[in-house]
Amino acid sequence: MKNLAIVVAGGSGTRMGAAVPKQFLPLCGKPVLMHTVEAFASVPGMRVVVVLPESQIGTWEALCRQHGFCAPAEVVAGGASRHQSVRNGLAMWSGEELIGVHDGVRPLVSATFIESVYADASRFGTSIPVLPSVESVRLVGLDGASRSVDRSSVMMVQTPQVFRSSILLDAYRQPESPLFTDDASVVEANGGEIHLSEGLRGNIKLTTPADMLMAEALMRKA
Amino acid sequence: MKNLAIVVAGGSGTRMGAAVPKQFLPLCGKPVLMHTVEAFASVPGMRVVVVLPESQIGTWEALCRQHGFCAPAEVVAGGASRHQSVRNGLAMWSGEELIGVHDGVRPLVSATFIESVYADASRFGTSIPVLPSVESVRLVGLDGASRSVDRSSVMMVQTPQVFRSSILLDAYRQPESPLFTDDASVVEANGGEIHLSEGLRGNIKLTTPADMLMAEALMRKA
Repeated sequence: MKNLAIVVAGGSGTRMGAAVPKQFLPLCGKPVLMHTVEAFASVPGMRVVVVLPESQIGTWEALCRQHGFCAPAEVVAGGASRHQSVRNGLAMWSGEELIGVHDGVRPLVSATFIESVYADASRFGTSIPVLPSVESVRLVGLDGASRSVDRSSVMMVQTPQVFRSSILLDAYRQPESPLFTDDASVVEANGGEIHLSEGLRGNIKLTTPADMLMAEALMRKA
Repeated sequence: MKNLAIVVAGGSGTRMGAAVPKQFLPLCGKPVLMHTVEAFASVPGMRVVVVLPESQIGTWEALCRQHGFCAPAEVVAGGASRHQSVRNGLAMWSGEELIGVHDGVRPLVSATFIESVYADASRFGTSIPVLPSVESVRLVGLDGASRSVDRSSVMMVQTPQVFRSSILLDAYRQPESPLFTDDASVVEANGGEIHLSEGLRGNIKLTTPADMLMAEALMRKA
C-alpha cells in the first residue's frame, strides 16, 4: 500500500517579520520544512511531494545540499493560492490509496500521529485532526458585530488532513471559492462527509516568532 | 481614578498532568500566578483581587512568604464554578470605575497591554481582546456533525476582559447559564454590546506542559 503526502509550503514569512520565508527558518539547526518532510518520509509506504513557490525551489535545493538532506521528496511549483498549490500537488498523484495534505510549517508532527490519521482515513474515507479550543471564541459578522459561541462546539483544525484519493481528487475539480479555508472545506462543499480525528497538542502551526521559540523548546524536550 | 482587576485562578491542574495546580507551577523560578499578579499590580491605580479555591489559599500564602512576594493583592475564596468565583471577586468592588477579569494562568500579559485594554473599556464601556485564528475552525453540532466556518470570522478571545463596573456588576446579577463561557458572554446575555480590542500574541493561556515550555522560552527572550 502506497500513500501520498502533499506538504504545502507557500508562506512568504511576512507575519514572522523575517526576510526568510518561515518554512526555511532554522529550527534546532535545520530549516522548518526539513523537519516536516522527515516526519512524513519516515512513515513506511509514504510518498512525499513538497509544493513550494517557484521562486523558492532553488533556495530549497541549495538548503538540501548544504544540510546533506536526503529524505526523499519530490518538489513541484505552487500556484497563486493555497488551493492552486494543492491542485499542483494532486497532479502528481499516481494511484496512491490515500492523500494527505499538510502545512509545511507544522514541523512538530510525528510519524506515529501521521500513521494514526492516515489509518482513520483508510477506515472512514476522511480524517481531519482537531482539538477543542482552550480559549473562548467569538464569530464576527459582515457588519463587524461579534457573538460568542459555545466553546465546547469549537474545534481547532490541524493537518495532515487525509482523504481517500478519489474523494479529494474529485473535490478539487470544483472551481476555487473564498469559502475554502482548508481541504476539509473543499471536500465538504463537494458533498463529502468529514470524519474528525483527535489532533496532537504539540502539532502547532508556526506563524510568529513566539511560535518558533515554542517549537525549539518542544523539540529540545522531545 | 482607581480600577479593579479580578484575577481568577481556579484550576486544579489535571490537564497539566501535574499534582500542583497550574497557577502554582514554577515559571522562571516563580509560580505562574505571581507573574500574573505582578503585571497587574505594576499598573498605576490598579487594585488587584485574586480569587483562589479556598483549599489553595494557604498554599498561596506560604508561596508568597517563601518567595518574599510583596505585590499588593487581596485574596478571596472562589466558588463551585468560574462564574461563582468571578461573583465572589465582584463582591470586593468598592466603587472602582472599571473592572477587568483575567485568567490567572495568563502570566505573559504585560502592563502596557493591560493599560491599553482598560483604556478601551473606559472609552467604549467594554473591551475584549481578541486575535484572529491562525487555524481553520470547525463547529460541532449536538448531533456530532461538524461544519467548517469562514476562518476570517473567527476570533480567539483572551483576557483581561474589561468593563465599566456597572455593566459587569449588572450582568452578573443574572442566574448562571451553561452558555456563559467568559465574561463577555455574560454581559452579552444581559443585552450589553461588546467592543473588541486587539489581543496580544504572546498572552497565552497555560493549559498543557507544552505551554509551560513556550512561556519559559518567551520569558527568557523578553
